[in-house]
Amino acid sequence: MGAVTPAAAHSDRAPKQDRSRATRMRLLEAAVACLAELGWARSTVSVVAERAGVSRGAAQHHFPTREDLFTAAVEYVAEQRSHALRELSAKTRAEVVAALVDLYTGPLFRAALHLWVAASHEAALHARVAELEGRVGRETHRIAVRLLDADESRPGVRETVQGLLDMARGLGLANVLTDDTGRRERVVRQWGHLLDEALG
Amino acid sequence: MGAVTPAAAHSDRAPKQDRSRATRMRLLEAAVACLAELGWARSTVSVVAERAGVSRGAAQHHFPTREDLFTAAVEYVAEQRSHALRELSAKTRAEVVAALVDLYTGPLFRAALHLWVAASHEAALHARVAELEGRVGRETHRIAVRLLDADESRPGVRETVQGLLDMARGLGLANVLTDDTGRRERVVRQWGHLLDEALG
Repeated sequence: MGAVTPAAAHSDRAPKQDRSRATRMRLLEAAVACLAELGWARSTVSVVAERAGVSRGAAQHHFPTREDLFTAAVEYVAEQRSHALRELSAKTRAEVVAALVDLYTGPLFRAALHLWVAASHEAALHARVAELEGRVGRETHRIAVRLLDADESRPGVRETVQGLLDMARGLGLANVLTDDTGRRERVVRQWGHLLDEALG
Repeated sequence: MGAVTPAAAHSDRAPKQDRSRATRMRLLEAAVACLAELGWARSTVSVVAERAGVSRGAAQHHFPTREDLFTAAVEYVAEQRSHALRELSAKTRAEVVAALVDLYTGPLFRAALHLWVAASHEAALHARVAELEGRVGRETHRIAVRLLDADESRPGVRETVQGLLDMARGLGLANVLTDDTGRRERVVRQWGHLLDEALG
């Protein structure tokens, strides 16, 4: 121990931190995939650890409880979604509407949906998921307003954008049991027109 | 036995049928309440039978499998919703929009949501719930078109109404974790205006 120079100690610690971060991310991604495919009841820490190729002990070192693991996973998903939104290069409002709706289909929305529904009757999840959902909702709204170039000082504009995000969430839910892509594309095209007119 | 006249046999059978129908309805209502409050994983036939004050054997006489019980319960809910919609005395389009959105809040939507989400990863439920959801969706759309006095021969009108119902579903989902009533009312008012203009 005493023979290790500070520089060597640092270079030894850095790869360890990288490995730890990589393990954490593998666990978060596996948690989202498990939630989306298996639902809350079957998504245990053991199932996630096995899918991530990580020991149960290592998983519990990162996330002491099941609630810690899954709320962190959905937060991670939400950050990825916000990041993707901010990077969006959509030009027209119709393109922005389509991109916003896309956020609510696929495994990320599906995982969040399972967590929300479980939180509605699991006391240990409720407060954390409600807080997380509120935070993600406000962030998504802010980004949508900017991308749509919507002037929220005009009466009704705020509620118009909120209703659009509610519609996107409802379209996501409609896609959970069956592939609803064709119908969804037609609805998105039409409401893209209506929204463009409404926002002026 | 031989002493019973046909009339007496009939009057004996009728109350039995009434009792059987009443038991069935108690089971269906208890199933919806359990799904809404406990979620799919904890809603077993035993839990529902106990809540309905019915023996487990009697419950299984009416509904041989758990899937039978819960799909019948959500179908029963959907019929009640359709009936309530058809009876609607709303006059203006704004009132119709508010009444449509009301269908997606409360325990009935919550029960259906738990069943849809469970069906996304429970093979025994998937086909039946997907078929049921499609049927209910088409029926709701038909009633909405009539109540909104929407002319579906005009381009875009069909998709405008569909998007409204998707928004209603998304608003229902937003209400699952926290009471979203205040925000929902403002969104409904604004989208009532947008819809009224769009439908002409």
